[in-house]
Amino acid sequence: MSKYGSIVQHIIDSIEHGSYQAGDALPSLRQLVQQHAVSLNTARRAYYELERLGYVEAHSRRGYAVAAGAVHSADRLAAPLGAPFIHTALYDTRPLTHAFIGAMRRYDEALSEPALAGLPALRRQIAQQAHAEGWRLQADDVLVTCGGMEALSLAIAAVTHGIAEPCVAVLLPAFPGLLGWLAEHGVRVLPLLPDEHDQLPCTQLEQALAAGAVQAIALMSAYCHPHGRSLSAANQQRLLALAQRYDIAIVEDDAYRQLGFDEQVPLPLKAQDSDGRVLLCATFSKSLAPGYRVGWLAPGRYADTVRRLKLAHTLASPLPNQLALAELLAGGRHLPLLARLRTQLAEKVAALEQALALRLPPEIVLRPAQGGYFVWLDNLPCDSVQLAAEAEREGIVLAPGTLCLPGDAGRRALRLNASYFDPLQQQAALDWLARALRQAPPRDAG
Amino acid sequence: MSKYGSIVQHIIDSIEHGSYQAGDALPSLRQLVQQHAVSLNTARRAYYELERLGYVEAHSRRGYAVAAGAVHSADRLAAPLGAPFIHTALYDTRPLTHAFIGAMRRYDEALSEPALAGLPALRRQIAQQAHAEGWRLQADDVLVTCGGMEALSLAIAAVTHGIAEPCVAVLLPAFPGLLGWLAEHGVRVLPLLPDEHDQLPCTQLEQALAAGAVQAIALMSAYCHPHGRSLSAANQQRLLALAQRYDIAIVEDDAYRQLGFDEQVPLPLKAQDSDGRVLLCATFSKSLAPGYRVGWLAPGRYADTVRRLKLAHTLASPLPNQLALAELLAGGRHLPLLARLRTQLAEKVAALEQALALRLPPEIVLRPAQGGYFVWLDNLPCDSVQLAAEAEREGIVLAPGTLCLPGDAGRRALRLNASYFDPLQQQAALDWLARALRQAPPRDAG
Repeated sequence: MSKYGSIVQHIIDSIEHGSYQAGDALPSLRQLVQQHAVSLNTARRAYYELERLGYVEAHSRRGYAVAAGAVHSADRLAAPLGAPFIHTALYDTRPLTHAFIGAMRRYDEALSEPALAGLPALRRQIAQQAHAEGWRLQADDVLVTCGGMEALSLAIAAVTHGIAEPCVAVLLPAFPGLLGWLAEHGVRVLPLLPDEHDQLPCTQLEQALAAGAVQAIALMSAYCHPHGRSLSAANQQRLLALAQRYDIAIVEDDAYRQLGFDEQVPLPLKAQDSDGRVLLCATFSKSLAPGYRVGWLAPGRYADTVRRLKLAHTLASPLPNQLALAELLAGGRHLPLLARLRTQLAEKVAALEQALALRLPPEIVLRPAQGGYFVWLDNLPCDSVQLAAEAEREGIVLAPGTLCLPGDAGRRALRLNASYFDPLQQQAALDWLARALRQAPPRDAG
Repeated sequence: MSKYGSIVQHIIDSIEHGSYQAGDALPSLRQLVQQHAVSLNTARRAYYELERLGYVEAHSRRGYAVAAGAVHSADRLAAPLGAPFIHTALYDTRPLTHAFIGAMRRYDEALSEPALAGLPALRRQIAQQAHAEGWRLQADDVLVTCGGMEALSLAIAAVTHGIAEPCVAVLLPAFPGLLGWLAEHGVRVLPLLPDEHDQLPCTQLEQALAAGAVQAIALMSAYCHPHGRSLSAANQQRLLALAQRYDIAIVEDDAYRQLGFDEQVPLPLKAQDSDGRVLLCATFSKSLAPGYRVGWLAPGRYADTVRRLKLAHTLASPLPNQLALAELLAGGRHLPLLARLRTQLAEKVAALEQALALRLPPEIVLRPAQGGYFVWLDNLPCDSVQLAAEAEREGIVLAPGTLCLPGDAGRRALRLNASYFDPLQQQAALDWLARALRQAPPRDAG
């Protein structure tokens, strides 16, 4: 761990173990420098990070103090198996920072006017990356967005634009951000939940399509959130054929395609899109640069509507971050970073799956993930929303399946974030979870 | 002009004067280095900028060539009096780049997880800046957005959220981005157009308010787009009192408050907001960093809805840009930059106003701007939409008033971007404009 990281951890530990209470003054910068034999910059950075994490508040005169909500957030971080993002410790940010600094030195003036569709250099790199993966994408077809969420938001907005009672068929379970957007904007969801034989409810979908009631199918094809398993080739073909037959759009969320445990990156469904009906929504937030919020969208034949909506919502995406990523990709320096991240995620997920397999009641279904950073537990004997509430009282954060799967099906499931998993630190949390699941009253009787 | 800038200008001139046609090969980087006695980096940067401007295309093997659309975009740039943004030449980007590089060196690891409401360090700086201006804002009340457009978009979305037939009273003329958003989302506009005595149609507004038909008033209080004149204190009071009496929101677009020709920065209407009904939408895009797309929103009592919408739309704003701005503001290094920009804008606007006064028919109304970078011409003898179409055939880009003011009133007005104004280079364009306006058939007869 870096010096800066060990100071951060030391202070978090002190707060979590009650050595400091909310409002208590913390050591001054100069005291930190002496105590830990670090530079002033390192000390400042540690406090900066602690502030950002919500543990510490800076006061202009009094120095640093424990933040009011710190104890709560300390508890929440104690076992963040319910966290939504990849643990930041798994990223090596140095090559990107290095690329960023180099690019900023050369190109600062080039950053002074918004580029509406995105930085040409990054759009070209994105197209070249697709080419290297074995599929075709033109730089002109790429619109850079403020993160993957904006890509998804623009894509769904474009395909439902001007429809009185919009409806999207959604492959479930799904990314909570997608479900949240649809709920927020009054878009009805036609659920596409595969059965245990991986069969999709295609008859039901086709009836709705024939009635003209559905504008799009939203899916992930690779390492789907939250179970990390890819949509089978047969199901991909089925959905693409239906979309073509009934002339509707497919919104493909590409957030995890680079996060497979296999070295070979699978092609997106977009690679088979012959008539521009697939809107591919991608992001660098998971693969390379979580805080940079650089996503992109290949909107196919919806390009005009998407551009208009982009103008109305955020006008253009920030240039410096795009420049940094373009620079990193141009040098191929992202490849070792991706390889390292994939390996780490594969190890973390395998370790969590193994730890769970040793502990959980046998009726719980855990299908091994093929990519991503989540483990999805299904067929729980109890209600996951209640379970998460009980866990929270123990200082354990769990994400109930309802985040990704509305209704009763979601109440039988649980999403665990493996990127935070540490067999020693989280042994107690897993033991508690196993106990709670074994002691749960049978659902039928509950 | 920098070496890099003069190469860019030289090549643009060559394309505009027909020395190069679309598809023609351009000098290689090494040839540029020799021709202009510059470094390879400078040559590369020039091509990079030309690419970004749409003049040049890079081909992996064949080097650089004139882009397909270059002639068209050359024409458009010949006299960009209709341009929407401030000319990038008016920004000195070096201090920001310097701050950026310094901050990235120290804090790169801190950028690896999205901060949902924005970077605490920037939110604190924003609050401190308000304090320095003489009004109160808490860092916790600030949500950082992807540019001012997202701030505005979230604010209007929040105040009209869940309303079946939303309607917003809009102070006219207004920012085209606002009008575009409202049209795109089916929000009805109740026009608030002051008469020649600066009286607002308050009776009409009050009737609509009494009927419960209006959810918000959208306005700029300082140096309003497009005329650069502030809303009078009396009108500000009137609108605030009406909003309070009928319990509706005020969406205040703060984009130009730092761009006044007077040194004293006026207070926003938000400074008088006692009950959180004003949603202040601000941005650094005009004042300091156009390409960074860092805006912010102080959403008052709409904070919960705004946060939910922000999550659904872009999740969080990019951190590196926020870090750079926080660093610049913390050192007070933005103040000389702002002072310099204000002076330059005041000079440009005065020069354009003077050049126009010498040329235009006397019936055209030109009220001197107090800030910003536009000059707004009213009471034109002809239709500004037709005029802009004729101008385009001459290679002159004009923005018809309808962009900011729908309907007939807008057809009598024209928005000119003074930041691009150069008395020598644009003499011909202004002469053409003056001639066209003098020769125009009287509107009543047309």
